[in-house]
Amino acid sequence: MRPVWVLLGDSLTQRSFEPSGWGASLVNAYSRSIDVQCRGYSGYNSRWVLGLLPTILPLDKPGPPPQLLILCLGANDACLPDRSSAKQHVPLEEFKANLAAIVQHARRLGVANILVLTPGPVHEPTRLTHALQTRGLALESAERTAAVSGAYAAAAAEVAHSLSLPSINLWTGFSQRPGWETELLCDGLHFSSAGQTLVGDWVREAIAAHFPTLTPQALPWEGPDHTDIDGERWEACLASGGGKHP
Amino acid sequence: MRPVWVLLGDSLTQRSFEPSGWGASLVNAYSRSIDVQCRGYSGYNSRWVLGLLPTILPLDKPGPPPQLLILCLGANDACLPDRSSAKQHVPLEEFKANLAAIVQHARRLGVANILVLTPGPVHEPTRLTHALQTRGLALESAERTAAVSGAYAAAAAEVAHSLSLPSINLWTGFSQRPGWETELLCDGLHFSSAGQTLVGDWVREAIAAHFPTLTPQALPWEGPDHTDIDGERWEACLASGGGKHP
Repeated sequence: MRPVWVLLGDSLTQRSFEPSGWGASLVNAYSRSIDVQCRGYSGYNSRWVLGLLPTILPLDKPGPPPQLLILCLGANDACLPDRSSAKQHVPLEEFKANLAAIVQHARRLGVANILVLTPGPVHEPTRLTHALQTRGLALESAERTAAVSGAYAAAAAEVAHSLSLPSINLWTGFSQRPGWETELLCDGLHFSSAGQTLVGDWVREAIAAHFPTLTPQALPWEGPDHTDIDGERWEACLASGGGKHP
Repeated sequence: MRPVWVLLGDSLTQRSFEPSGWGASLVNAYSRSIDVQCRGYSGYNSRWVLGLLPTILPLDKPGPPPQLLILCLGANDACLPDRSSAKQHVPLEEFKANLAAIVQHARRLGVANILVLTPGPVHEPTRLTHALQTRGLALESAERTAAVSGAYAAAAAEVAHSLSLPSINLWTGFSQRPGWETELLCDGLHFSSAGQTLVGDWVREAIAAHFPTLTPQALPWEGPDHTDIDGERWEACLASGGGKHP
């Protein structure tokens, strides 16, 4: 049985297996070592994910707990309470409490390694165009703002810090890159292919930095590398156990 | 517990989570419905995969069997016995017997749905360039040929047919597309990003055609769609069970 890594979040997680997706990049980098379970729920805020959590990660499930949990919420909580996506809004203090409760649940389950990703920034003009083009909605102002999303990103990082968890602030990371509005995002909110690649790079770097026992080189690798298999003595080679990640 | 789909094969499977990878496209298309386990072993032939099979898919594992197995082998069996990758060569008749034995093992495990992918074609000039550039090997002739790979592809399809399993012949599918040599392959053997996309499309089409109970719309979808969640009555909405794939 390979260790299981769980990616828990909203559409930024559900869509992490799109082309160049950050979730897929983990499966690729950790091939023959782990299984990744994508638990992204598009449109969900931290309140709804917390409500569904006993189903997503039941405490009475047999077997070992996930080896790593990557938690990415807040993009929907940050919807403004007086605009078109008001239903998804969660007040900042509740968002922080929900994040902490999700972490507490994971720790009760026995998850030893947790990495927090904050939501990324929002490009309001693109959100307006997107609403018009995909839903025929001519909005006066976007349902999310870059500034408010930044506050939720900072809050997620703050919760992580208070719980001694590493985090990646995607909001600041993206915002510092010139052209992030259209190069790293595809619709003012979700990651473009280049954005996915960048998040994947950051996640793998963060894992290496904060969880040194979880690098590809540190984890068991199933089956010997084919270059180590002797064509004549292949049975003995296979029986000798796993190999090392090249 | 979500159903598990297992992708079993060689590097064409191990690398199926590269950007635009066909494995990742399944996770993306079936988000909130299934978990995908990538069991690709680069460089392995059918003999070695069969040897490792009791470890990969143990018969005594508790819990339900995989809901679907996608099997893609033969690219390494087709290495020529008198060239630089001779170690990986498996005679055609043994290859067929190994494939049948792997299917038999999966059926003993209780796997009801099995899809066979054949190996794709090989572009010999690119293989020669690749050997020179990556390993400094100035070969006179490539370790694989398009013709011999085609024979292994046909054999895989034949085994699938004889066992009443659907198959996708990647060799013929690729070969019919003008420019496949460099557009669909990245090194004369493995899939380029465009090749990955094409294989992903074909795999999802084949699943829809041959396993109508395994379409995204037919499978349970975890959690209600966020558009169906009432902001005030969210607890009742979540408790009402899963939604429908949009």
